[in-house]
Amino acid sequence: MTQRLSTLPNGFRIVTEAMPGLESAALGVWITAGGRHEQPEQNGIAHFLEHMAFKGTGSRSALQIAEEIEDVGGYINAYTSREMTAFYARVLKADVDLAMELIADILLDPVFDSREIEVERGVILQEIGQVLDTPDDVVFDWLQEVAYPEQALGRSILGPSERVSGFSRDDLLRFVGEHYGPERMILSAAGAVDHERLVAAAERLFGGMTAKGGDTATPASFTGGELRVAKGLEQAHFAMAFETAGYRDDAIYTAQILSTALGGGMSSRLFQEVRERRGLCYTIFAQTGAYADTGLTTIYAGTSAEEIGTLAAVTMDELRRSAEDMTEAEVARARAQMKAGMLMGLESPSSRAERLARVVSIWNRIPPLSETVQRIDAVTLEDVTALARQMASGGAALTLYGPIDRAPSLEALRERLAA
Amino acid sequence: MTQRLSTLPNGFRIVTEAMPGLESAALGVWITAGGRHEQPEQNGIAHFLEHMAFKGTGSRSALQIAEEIEDVGGYINAYTSREMTAFYARVLKADVDLAMELIADILLDPVFDSREIEVERGVILQEIGQVLDTPDDVVFDWLQEVAYPEQALGRSILGPSERVSGFSRDDLLRFVGEHYGPERMILSAAGAVDHERLVAAAERLFGGMTAKGGDTATPASFTGGELRVAKGLEQAHFAMAFETAGYRDDAIYTAQILSTALGGGMSSRLFQEVRERRGLCYTIFAQTGAYADTGLTTIYAGTSAEEIGTLAAVTMDELRRSAEDMTEAEVARARAQMKAGMLMGLESPSSRAERLARVVSIWNRIPPLSETVQRIDAVTLEDVTALARQMASGGAALTLYGPIDRAPSLEALRERLAA
Repeated sequence: MTQRLSTLPNGFRIVTEAMPGLESAALGVWITAGGRHEQPEQNGIAHFLEHMAFKGTGSRSALQIAEEIEDVGGYINAYTSREMTAFYARVLKADVDLAMELIADILLDPVFDSREIEVERGVILQEIGQVLDTPDDVVFDWLQEVAYPEQALGRSILGPSERVSGFSRDDLLRFVGEHYGPERMILSAAGAVDHERLVAAAERLFGGMTAKGGDTATPASFTGGELRVAKGLEQAHFAMAFETAGYRDDAIYTAQILSTALGGGMSSRLFQEVRERRGLCYTIFAQTGAYADTGLTTIYAGTSAEEIGTLAAVTMDELRRSAEDMTEAEVARARAQMKAGMLMGLESPSSRAERLARVVSIWNRIPPLSETVQRIDAVTLEDVTALARQMASGGAALTLYGPIDRAPSLEALRERLAA
Repeated sequence: MTQRLSTLPNGFRIVTEAMPGLESAALGVWITAGGRHEQPEQNGIAHFLEHMAFKGTGSRSALQIAEEIEDVGGYINAYTSREMTAFYARVLKADVDLAMELIADILLDPVFDSREIEVERGVILQEIGQVLDTPDDVVFDWLQEVAYPEQALGRSILGPSERVSGFSRDDLLRFVGEHYGPERMILSAAGAVDHERLVAAAERLFGGMTAKGGDTATPASFTGGELRVAKGLEQAHFAMAFETAGYRDDAIYTAQILSTALGGGMSSRLFQEVRERRGLCYTIFAQTGAYADTGLTTIYAGTSAEEIGTLAAVTMDELRRSAEDMTEAEVARARAQMKAGMLMGLESPSSRAERLARVVSIWNRIPPLSETVQRIDAVTLEDVTALARQMASGGAALTLYGPIDRAPSLEALRERLAA
């Protein structure tokens, strides 16, 4: 076992996996603070902070940060999700210490210079514009809002332009003060890394931080409903979500098996019926995502104005049919896809570091793969059909975007599901 | 050295790299046939063929193909580029033989059933619609057309809807007959693979094919010019291309170093000046791509209607400045980024199989990494500034899409470059 987890007295955790034969490493700090930790007036600030980390520290300008990592051929980046903000780097073996120093510096000593805040505000407003030009991004932001309306979990990660236009240095400092505590930080590293060395570095760099208290996100409540936005696009974008389990609930595996069998690959029901037999779309899929206390199983497809009605109806028929005649063979195939996908995904240091950070944030330990495999294997065909029945008869969130005149209403879709 | 290359008597090549410690493999067949091998009336047929491969063979239905690979948790996919069509799979170690059988079957024995052709035509028309809704895809298709007008290399890979609507079974068979010869096929595999075993399988499956003659693409001629398409988008999309070297020309490394220093990372000139200092965009980059006999160094950025004029002007200033005051430090950094990027990219079996296929198609051997590193190191600062001067004074292709009223003309940009 080359996976190791250590915890500093202040709660800061270090998880690593040495991967033999690799000449490079992926490492980063994952913080359990994201969009869902924002108050309404803070919407977008977790993401703004992620941007500002690269805009200069007490000892390095923005240019110096970029040059130091790129001088050795590495790169550094970050992302913000609804429950996490991550700052990570990819470097060759010899440069792990440098990457560690840089990540600590941008996290612990950002200056938030007011001129840099103004410039970065412009960058983020451009990023928001870019998302608005990408219909299959926008439709998921809206779906989240319909699923969890007027809740932190339902708001977009980038935030609306009006909020982003107003954030001040004090707003940034307040969010850091509330959420960037050591007990919410995980240093995760995989590849050509040495656990003891990273623990020593973490002690030196993060050991002096004072604990702030745990995660303060408010529980989410799935509501559902419908949002239709007509626009002159080539495609009508269809996205529908059903509430499924959170990530600490074993039922997540049932939801993942159902969404895999329904729309997880070429052999899935939706791909076969909607794309392969009827040629109604290029992209169609189902997927399951999870948060601490809730989760979403989502179906997405893009089609033409003429076909949106048929596509929506056939998709409902397939979901209803999944509750009636799902087979052991399909469940077995979905299990195999999940297990092999997990194994193959773990062959890159980036995805391994990412997974380690995620499982430690959830379980505060590293469950062996065999445990995950057991949970996947424990799901029965009855579990899967029961979940499909529940989805067919319960609430749902629906968003439609583009030339959607001929798209049925959520009520019509639910009637078809219940038929 | 675990990289091995074998050639069957009919010209079919097998290249493999066993990667110790891996439990999975990536393998596929790369065919040197793509968009640039199409006659004008065939535009889109290479891509149509790629789709039809999955629609049934003499012994397997489309559903059986999908089920066989997904039953073992693997996946199979394909892509078409301007010079290549690739069919590849990712599987666990035990399923390499199965993946090999499937790939050979879809390549050698597709039935092209007429009903399936009609269905897949619908899927591809939907795919074209999806691209049209993605401004930063469309703008690159147009840029290619402006760079190489009325040439195969300038046409889109998906083809226009009117062509796709007309393709028949005979059209498909004709393209296969002209281009799918064994001497244009490379089986490439990396990860948990055994060279001898794959060579034996290739002999059995592909050994009976008859050579058809080599690659027949017509030489490309960079022309350049300007295409402006006004549309009510959030962002104005700017894409500009300059002709640089083909992939057999050492000057490709000069172009890659220049584009890396200009817009390849956070420390690059364009990122620093346009995004970091001025906040004019979220996305800006420069990159170099290459074909057999020509190549393009491309700059892309997305910005708002208000900022497009400034963005275009500042971008030209940075390119002109690159011809004047590029430093040894920037060239050294770009070299480090290219070398480390290459090493880190090779740690996944998929990217390794892809690279092996590509280098074998170019060189008919596997140049050691040290040789590539030598070529990168051989590029001098003078080479880089000379290329920047040449780009600043020579022809260019420009496409603009979105709210572009305030965007300068190509002529104005070239004047600014020459100033």
